[in-house]
Amino acid sequence: MSRFWSPLVHQLTPYVPGEQPKIPNLIKLNTNESPYGPSPKVFEAIRQAADDTLRLYPDPQAQDLKQVLADYTGLPADHIFVGNGSDEVLAIAYQALLKQDKPLLFPDISYSFYPVYCQMYQVDYEQIPLDKNFNINLADYQRPNGGIIFPNPNAPTGIALPLNNIKQLLDNNPDTVVLVDEAYVDFGAESAVALVKDYPNLLVTQTLSKSWALAGLRVGFAVGQPALIEALIRVKDSFNSYPLDRLALVGAAAAIQDQDYFKATCSKIITSRESLTADLTALGFEVLPSSANFVFVSHPQHEGAWLAQKLREKALLVRHFNQPRIANFLRITLGTKEQNQLLVQALKGILS
Amino acid sequence: MSRFWSPLVHQLTPYVPGEQPKIPNLIKLNTNESPYGPSPKVFEAIRQAADDTLRLYPDPQAQDLKQVLADYTGLPADHIFVGNGSDEVLAIAYQALLKQDKPLLFPDISYSFYPVYCQMYQVDYEQIPLDKNFNINLADYQRPNGGIIFPNPNAPTGIALPLNNIKQLLDNNPDTVVLVDEAYVDFGAESAVALVKDYPNLLVTQTLSKSWALAGLRVGFAVGQPALIEALIRVKDSFNSYPLDRLALVGAAAAIQDQDYFKATCSKIITSRESLTADLTALGFEVLPSSANFVFVSHPQHEGAWLAQKLREKALLVRHFNQPRIANFLRITLGTKEQNQLLVQALKGILS
Repeated sequence: MSRFWSPLVHQLTPYVPGEQPKIPNLIKLNTNESPYGPSPKVFEAIRQAADDTLRLYPDPQAQDLKQVLADYTGLPADHIFVGNGSDEVLAIAYQALLKQDKPLLFPDISYSFYPVYCQMYQVDYEQIPLDKNFNINLADYQRPNGGIIFPNPNAPTGIALPLNNIKQLLDNNPDTVVLVDEAYVDFGAESAVALVKDYPNLLVTQTLSKSWALAGLRVGFAVGQPALIEALIRVKDSFNSYPLDRLALVGAAAAIQDQDYFKATCSKIITSRESLTADLTALGFEVLPSSANFVFVSHPQHEGAWLAQKLREKALLVRHFNQPRIANFLRITLGTKEQNQLLVQALKGILS
Repeated sequence: MSRFWSPLVHQLTPYVPGEQPKIPNLIKLNTNESPYGPSPKVFEAIRQAADDTLRLYPDPQAQDLKQVLADYTGLPADHIFVGNGSDEVLAIAYQALLKQDKPLLFPDISYSFYPVYCQMYQVDYEQIPLDKNFNINLADYQRPNGGIIFPNPNAPTGIALPLNNIKQLLDNNPDTVVLVDEAYVDFGAESAVALVKDYPNLLVTQTLSKSWALAGLRVGFAVGQPALIEALIRVKDSFNSYPLDRLALVGAAAAIQDQDYFKATCSKIITSRESLTADLTALGFEVLPSSANFVFVSHPQHEGAWLAQKLREKALLVRHFNQPRIANFLRITLGTKEQNQLLVQALKGILS
């Protein structure tokens, strides 16, 4: 606390990201990073760009990367916005589109950054409870709102909302922006990008931190009709003209262009999700149906916090949220096949 | 314009950065980039970091880089904040410290992003006219304020305020934050970092984009007492946990650690400023006394906009601001010795 702080700072309860501890031989299954590295073409692109041109500012419009993403999504480049991770893209969308007179709606169990943005940008909001199976009930979103945001698949549950339901949500709320946060979409959910051309009120965000294995590079993007994209650009250009450095721009483009590598990696993770789900179920865990690169699990006989602590003692880091309704759950990022097996072995020991 | 925009977006007039055009053989003297590349140790650090660890998030606290900057400034690491270029650091400081009930004060001729941040974060402000020689008159800042911000040396004039005057400003305004934006300090001004330990109301920002030749990497930092730094961290963690990617973190640290290279480069630029000033004076230009890596010049017989256009036709890009009081000036970034000579030759041709 300090008399020099702005009134805003006194009110903030900042987001707490998953730990990045320095424990030897740690198996890190707590922040939904990819267990596989990015495409080797990314390294090549970065190494080539690490030269004297670093003295020059990057392209503030990121035109080359936007074009690569345009080709990837099948939409024109003016439908694309890029930012420093999807967290920054979301922060910009809050200011540009979601800050309205009526409250923003999002699920009670969801990405824990959403209420932090609301504090930060003074956006009124209502958290809508998921049903008892942690599903979104569309009827609950039939109320006055200044926008709707939710992850699909949802985090930390991993449960996906089918595209038809998203379409219905868009039809039911034609006057407000519906933001679908697709951080985990590549692991098995249907992307709403296919709906962008038909819905002027749809904004979709994605990140290169998960399925593209580039959490360390900080690149996210949004897809929407040009009027929405223009609002994002206006906010971006009013706070930081160049949030993406030259290395991130070329590295991200190289990743997106290596579709074969991307598909192979996603497919390995999906396969390992199936076997880890089977193994955990055999140990007595309830595993929510996941379309993400993590599973959200609880055990009828053991508390989530206790299990997380026991795993940590074995240098296995998973994420536990000390929150109503989900305090008994663990969110476990899918590791390599070997890491998943070590996790299952460790849990066997803990449960016996 | 769109009905989906937030009320805020309708009010914004975004900052327009200097052009990054694709003109063949362009001599680019418009955005104050370094004409020399960064230290080769930066390339080495980046190439080594371009590996599988890019799948992992960066350290959200940037501890290693902060320690390097702590060693550089001679202050503890809790006196350091890092961000995605000093533009982002400034944006965060506006929200964390400069948004108060009373107006923020800054010079009328100054970094043109300052009023944009005010719009963006709804900060009331007063622009205080520089005197007729473009100097800051301390007495003008003796009025109720919620903070003071100015670049030192000032941009686009290049004129530095002596440290004693900054001390006086701090003494005169003990209850509000004085932010000294030292983007260009390494080219000849006295840094206020030396005052940080004595003034709880002082925040100093610097950037790696100019003197460290890393505009393409997007790294800036702030130096202040821990209470001010904590306010910045709280805002940062309420909008983007990881604004610096892994490559920027290691590249910036490598640059700061190569002090010999840094000093040699700054010294070359300072020397070339002296000779360019002499050459331009000989051509009839009035050259303001610059402590920066640019000169701010006007010609009694020729309009600034016309000169800028004529230079552009010769693939020489300089910056012209179509603003009251300075519309007749050109801001010319110092290039290499060869580039400066080409500029002088071109101007000779244009003026004859």
